[in-house]
Amino acid sequence: MKTRDKIIQASITLFNEQGERNVTTNHIAAHLSISPGNLYYHFRNKEDVILSIYEEYAGSLLLETFPKVSTKVKPLDTIILYMDAVFQITMKFRFFYSNLPVLLDKNPSLREKYVEVQHAIADRVSQLLTSLRTENIINFEDEELVDMVSILRLINTFWLSFYQTQNIVNEINDSVFFQGVLKILVILRPYTTKASLPELLKARDMYQQRYQDALSTV
Amino acid sequence: MKTRDKIIQASITLFNEQGERNVTTNHIAAHLSISPGNLYYHFRNKEDVILSIYEEYAGSLLLETFPKVSTKVKPLDTIILYMDAVFQITMKFRFFYSNLPVLLDKNPSLREKYVEVQHAIADRVSQLLTSLRTENIINFEDEELVDMVSILRLINTFWLSFYQTQNIVNEINDSVFFQGVLKILVILRPYTTKASLPELLKARDMYQQRYQDALSTV
Repeated sequence: MKTRDKIIQASITLFNEQGERNVTTNHIAAHLSISPGNLYYHFRNKEDVILSIYEEYAGSLLLETFPKVSTKVKPLDTIILYMDAVFQITMKFRFFYSNLPVLLDKNPSLREKYVEVQHAIADRVSQLLTSLRTENIINFEDEELVDMVSILRLINTFWLSFYQTQNIVNEINDSVFFQGVLKILVILRPYTTKASLPELLKARDMYQQRYQDALSTV
Repeated sequence: MKTRDKIIQASITLFNEQGERNVTTNHIAAHLSISPGNLYYHFRNKEDVILSIYEEYAGSLLLETFPKVSTKVKPLDTIILYMDAVFQITMKFRFFYSNLPVLLDKNPSLREKYVEVQHAIADRVSQLLTSLRTENIINFEDEELVDMVSILRLINTFWLSFYQTQNIVNEINDSVFFQGVLKILVILRPYTTKASLPELLKARDMYQQRYQDALSTV
């Protein structure tokens, strides 16, 4: 692995474990047994490291994992799989999401990139919901679409932060992630048409089972 | 106003305007033209100021503003009024919510208090939803109750953070707060019974109007 990539990977780990606020570029360099000067050869400062993490990893992943709407995948599964993927990404880069408004305020380049990715995601979720309505899988009023997209994205983005603030001790493991997907299914359930409800409930049972399994392996 | 209270009020203002991370106890003292020693007479450190803000203001407000279920207020209005009140509180103490998981990690006493308040709120929202179901205003499955309570609280807690991360420039004004209430109404709409739907749609129109009015006065 190249030094630049080592710095990025170590930063993700340290930020997640210790909180971004508590980790300096000196800590990162010490962790990798490289000199601070070597780190500064690759990155201007900590903000630059965080920007690179988002640009090269988190943001790109969010855009790349968007499932293609295909005839092979059931349309309802397409949105569930996407929500699933997004929750996995927020867990992988959780330091980023637990501090999001503050990090964006400190870093205009990061904000610009983040907003750009968010708008692309909003467009895609919106298209996906519209195509689910066209196929008579879910039903909603036109004027609800924008809010539904916001609500799904809000839950995607902040579910982990919410979870982390609900108890004295919070261990982050797969059960947390399955709980997040279950929240999305609860949101979609009352919008689901009668014909498609069995499919949604099947997905819910599956994630419920995965959640139980993840709990018991902790 | 007593010095202790002046410190608290100035801290809320400075934290909201400049971000909690960028404000030190020295800034707060300088802003009030008092000595740092005087501040330290009242508070051990910045974490102690934040804990007091939550204990004496934000947390207590959250518990006190919970509307009494009374025969004078329509039951659907009760939950809308509560969600409305909670959004107002998150706007007033927005520095706290834009940084929540990080602040709680740094401050075990704050986490303890916060979790206690959250559990009390979850109980009340749960009772409110159950009583709305008993009165045949909304309808949901038993197994959805816990998730619905979480979803409403998640949106309450992180709507403002979400809003702040969606655009390059974000001005916080009343329109943001009305948009938050509208999200709650979108969540409740498909659960609302036919008989109560006109009431919910009336509330939605009212908040839509307030939102438009707030936009035009900006």
